[in-house]
Amino acid sequence: MSLLIVGTVAFDAIETPFGKTDKIVGGAASYIALAASYFTKEMSLVSVVGDDFPKDFLNILKKEGVNLEGLQIKKGEKSFFWSGKYHNDLNTRDTLDTQLNVLENFNPIVPESAKECDFLMLGNLVPAVQRSVINQMTKRPKLIVLDTMNFWMDIAMDELKKTIAMIDVLTINDSEARQLSGEYSLVKAAQKILLMGPQVLVIKKGEHGALLFNKEEVFFAPALPLEEVYDPTGAGDSFAGGFIGYLAKTKDISFDNMKRAIIFGSAMASFTVEKFGTERLIGLSQNDVDERVQEFIDLVQFDIVLV
Amino acid sequence: MSLLIVGTVAFDAIETPFGKTDKIVGGAASYIALAASYFTKEMSLVSVVGDDFPKDFLNILKKEGVNLEGLQIKKGEKSFFWSGKYHNDLNTRDTLDTQLNVLENFNPIVPESAKECDFLMLGNLVPAVQRSVINQMTKRPKLIVLDTMNFWMDIAMDELKKTIAMIDVLTINDSEARQLSGEYSLVKAAQKILLMGPQVLVIKKGEHGALLFNKEEVFFAPALPLEEVYDPTGAGDSFAGGFIGYLAKTKDISFDNMKRAIIFGSAMASFTVEKFGTERLIGLSQNDVDERVQEFIDLVQFDIVLV
Repeated sequence: MSLLIVGTVAFDAIETPFGKTDKIVGGAASYIALAASYFTKEMSLVSVVGDDFPKDFLNILKKEGVNLEGLQIKKGEKSFFWSGKYHNDLNTRDTLDTQLNVLENFNPIVPESAKECDFLMLGNLVPAVQRSVINQMTKRPKLIVLDTMNFWMDIAMDELKKTIAMIDVLTINDSEARQLSGEYSLVKAAQKILLMGPQVLVIKKGEHGALLFNKEEVFFAPALPLEEVYDPTGAGDSFAGGFIGYLAKTKDISFDNMKRAIIFGSAMASFTVEKFGTERLIGLSQNDVDERVQEFIDLVQFDIVLV
Repeated sequence: MSLLIVGTVAFDAIETPFGKTDKIVGGAASYIALAASYFTKEMSLVSVVGDDFPKDFLNILKKEGVNLEGLQIKKGEKSFFWSGKYHNDLNTRDTLDTQLNVLENFNPIVPESAKECDFLMLGNLVPAVQRSVINQMTKRPKLIVLDTMNFWMDIAMDELKKTIAMIDVLTINDSEARQLSGEYSLVKAAQKILLMGPQVLVIKKGEHGALLFNKEEVFFAPALPLEEVYDPTGAGDSFAGGFIGYLAKTKDISFDNMKRAIIFGSAMASFTVEKFGTERLIGLSQNDVDERVQEFIDLVQFDIVLV
C-alpha cells in the first residue's frame, strides 16, 4: 500500500448563497481519498463511521482502490455530523451544528497492510489521535503530511505542536499560520513554523491560491478564477488529496515535484467547489483533470527573458 | 513624447502599524512617473501643485526624463493633501483628512508636445477631468489606461462610465470590480466590465496579486510574499506605472506582452510598499529591478508536461 489516509468520513449539511443540502457525504478523508484516486489506486483508509453511513459511498471508495480494512463501522452508532452556513463572500462560515457521535471515542487502528506505507496523509482530527497513527507505523513513512485547523490551536496548542514536530509537511490556511506563529507576515510566519518540525509548509489562501515554503524557497500556486463557487466545503481536503496523491504516484518528494503536486492539488480543489459536497470529485476523466491543469498553466505562464 | 501621465502630485501623511510620517510627497502621478521611469525616459506629466510643493521632487522627476510643461504650479495656493491611517491588516484604511486645495478647480491642459503621445496613463481623478484629457489629444493614443476608485462609483457612476467607454485598459481593485459590475464573481464581473468599453481589465488584489482579463483570456500575476509591508500607499499607482512604462518601452500592446507588463508592474509595486511614500522608488538600479522580476519568475515557475 503506498498511501495511508486518516481522517473523518462523515455527514455534512451545507448552506451557501447558492442553495442548501440535506445530510450529504462529507468528511476530510472522503475528499482526500477521492482527490488522490486520480493519481494512485494504492490507498488505505483509517476512519470511523456509524452504521447509518451509506454503503454506496464506501463502494465508490473501494472501486477507486481504497482499502477499507482500517474503517471501523460502529453498530448502532451514528456517523459524525457537521452543519454549517457560509456567508455571502464564501470565505467565512458559521457552524450550525456539530454532532461528534462515533468520533467521540475514535481510536484509530492502522491495519497491518498499511503500517509500512510510504505516504501518510493525516486529515484534520484531534492532534493526539493523529499522533497515535504515526506511532503505529512500523516503518517511518517517506512523507507525512498533516492538515489541522484553528480549533485545535484554540484548545490544544501544546498537543498540536507535539504532533507537528513529527511530520514533514503541514497544510494550514493563512489565518491559522498567523495564529500558530504569532506573526502577521506570512513569510515570517512560515520561517517560525518551519522551526517547529516540518520541512515544508503549505499555506492555503482559498480563492487567493496557496503558498509552498521550505527554509530556502517559496512557490505560489494560484486558485483558478471561477465563474461560480457553489460550496467551498472540502476544498482544502481535495487540495491535500491531489497533493499527496500526485507525490505518491511520482514517488518524488523534492521541492520541485511538490510545486507540481500543489498545482494538481489546486486543480482538484477547483473541481470540488463547483458543486455541493463530493459530487464533482466522482467520475472525472483523466482528460478533465489534464484540461484543468492546463488552465492553471495558461493562467500563470509568461515569458520574460532578463538580459 | 511616448507616454503622457495625468494624475495628482501631492502631499500625504500616512500612519501604518509600523510608523507614521509627516507630510511627504505622494499622489498617483508621482508614483506612476517614478515607476515608469525604469522603462522609458520619454514622459510628459499633466498635473497641478501649489507653490508649497518641493522643487527637489520636481527635479527628480525632470532628471528621470519627465517633461513638466503640463504641470501647473499655482502661486499662493496649496497642494492637494491626503492623510490616512491603515488598519493592522494593511488592507483597509481610514481617511483622516482630505484637503483638495489646488485640485478643486483643476483644469488639465495638455501641452502641444504631448498631444500625440502613443501611451496615455490616466491616474485616479474626477472622471470628467480624465475625459477632458482624452478629448485634448490630437491623435488617438495607441493605448489609454485608466485607474479609478470606488469614490467615483459612489458619487459619479454615470460620469465614470462615460470615461470608461473611451479607454482601452481599466485598472481597479477587486471590490471596485464588484461594485462597478454588480457581480460578486470576478470572472463574471470582468465579463460585464469588458462590455463597457475597455478591451482589457486589470483587477488588483493587493497582497493577493492581480488578474488580467480580455474577452477570451485570463492571466494571473502573484504579489511577492514580503516579510514586511511598511506602507501600501501608492502600490496600485506604481503597478500602473510599471505596467504602462513597460508597454511604452516595448511598443507592443498584445495580451502576451501585457502579461509581461503586469509582472513588471507588480515588481514596481513590491518595491513601493517596502518603505513609506515614494522613497523606495527613487534610485533603484536596473539590476534591482531585474532581480525582483526574477523573484516573480521563480515564485510561479513550474514544469508540468501533460501527455
